[in-house]
Amino acid sequence: MRVASRVLASDTRPVTRSAHGLAIRRATRLLEAFGPDRRTMTLTQLAHRTGLPLTTAHRLAGVLTECGLLERDDAGAYHVGLRLWEIAALAPRGLGLREVALPFMEDLYAVTQENVQLGIRDGLESVFVERLAGRLAVPVLTRVGGRFPLHPTALGRVLLAYAPPDVQEAVLARPLASFTPRTVTDPRALRKILAEVRSLGWAVNDRQVTMDSLSVAAPVRAGDGSVVAAVSVVVSAGSATANALAPMVRAAARGISRSLGSDTSD
Amino acid sequence: MRVASRVLASDTRPVTRSAHGLAIRRATRLLEAFGPDRRTMTLTQLAHRTGLPLTTAHRLAGVLTECGLLERDDAGAYHVGLRLWEIAALAPRGLGLREVALPFMEDLYAVTQENVQLGIRDGLESVFVERLAGRLAVPVLTRVGGRFPLHPTALGRVLLAYAPPDVQEAVLARPLASFTPRTVTDPRALRKILAEVRSLGWAVNDRQVTMDSLSVAAPVRAGDGSVVAAVSVVVSAGSATANALAPMVRAAARGISRSLGSDTSD
Repeated sequence: MRVASRVLASDTRPVTRSAHGLAIRRATRLLEAFGPDRRTMTLTQLAHRTGLPLTTAHRLAGVLTECGLLERDDAGAYHVGLRLWEIAALAPRGLGLREVALPFMEDLYAVTQENVQLGIRDGLESVFVERLAGRLAVPVLTRVGGRFPLHPTALGRVLLAYAPPDVQEAVLARPLASFTPRTVTDPRALRKILAEVRSLGWAVNDRQVTMDSLSVAAPVRAGDGSVVAAVSVVVSAGSATANALAPMVRAAARGISRSLGSDTSD
Repeated sequence: MRVASRVLASDTRPVTRSAHGLAIRRATRLLEAFGPDRRTMTLTQLAHRTGLPLTTAHRLAGVLTECGLLERDDAGAYHVGLRLWEIAALAPRGLGLREVALPFMEDLYAVTQENVQLGIRDGLESVFVERLAGRLAVPVLTRVGGRFPLHPTALGRVLLAYAPPDVQEAVLARPLASFTPRTVTDPRALRKILAEVRSLGWAVNDRQVTMDSLSVAAPVRAGDGSVVAAVSVVVSAGSATANALAPMVRAAARGISRSLGSDTSD
């Protein structure tokens, strides 16, 4: 693969200017126009949202529909297609990781009956890959496939604590959004929290995201010892202590790590 | 949307011949080359698998990687990217349905501790959208995001029993694959089974897929009363009777249907 890698690096520029590149980038823009608050869009909305001319959006949506990546409902509006979801189910950082983690998450759910979440870091944010939640569990702001800032959640704090230094500095250099009166938004305070996470091997979020939730997270490690994900449990604030939850969450995280080939402790 | 629909129908042909169409169809081919047994592929494997020239595969993979739809590992091999999975999480027939169904599936899992599955029909096959499975549950052949024939599974039989007549006839006209000595492969026998499913409101698969499993499924209905999915539980053959499982599975299916806006009984 070294040859291919070198070839790829040497002609990235001409490729990005090619007609193929333009078509695929535009198609990606069209796909990325969909969101949790706009799962279905008319052609006009798609064109407006992407900034593409109506005729171009129409042509692209037609091809994407033909390929099964988009689908149309009875009213003619577009939504993300099942075919895309089938392909995406093969993403190692998405459902691939989820398949390994699910049995351990279910154990954790069985003993807590609370929200159990699995997430990874992508850039300066976390992406939630899986969530198990009973109908009686405390409501959470996260969504499977959704992104969230790293600094307030227990899951995000684990991912950030074990991220490369440049990622940590990039997060600390930006304004830290506040969700509740208790959210830590001072970079120095957050830096101290991250050091504690590394020292303890787990993280806590006490009313940092909503005033009625507390969460505890632990790192999931790959075979090479690197932290590739985090697992967390979210409970009603006041219903359990972080110290009581931590051993259960760490046990689940270690189980997943072991299945991924890691023999290191967290 | 009627206007857009008419426009789309009138120029499907020129579109499919356009450069944009070619690029997107080729990119889709590249994405579809990945599978459960080949989640990671080198450029050479990708080219071989798609039948595209190495230089074309290389150019397309480069653009797809740049867009985040593909990712490369340390060795330079490609896999489906997290970005694609994030977009696909918005597919109403994939994770959208799953989000509504999950709490009811968890209830079913809590009382059975067995495999609980959610699936939909796409063409003449079923696609599994979600599965909860304990570490001690009976092994199953299905995979989230994977396809399976409709005729042998309880889930597939529900989906087939409530499918349009032309879909039923198309399935019955083809050879029915045999998985165990007990698999029903006679179209007349299957036709009778489908009538029973409609009459009972649920389906059973007794050692039709593996000799050590039994499954029971019930239909999930949308607000307009149409069957849009099925939910099933898979247990070790001999560990429980279909009659004992059916009420639980039907209750879960009705709960999901109610959340989808259906007020009909199954």
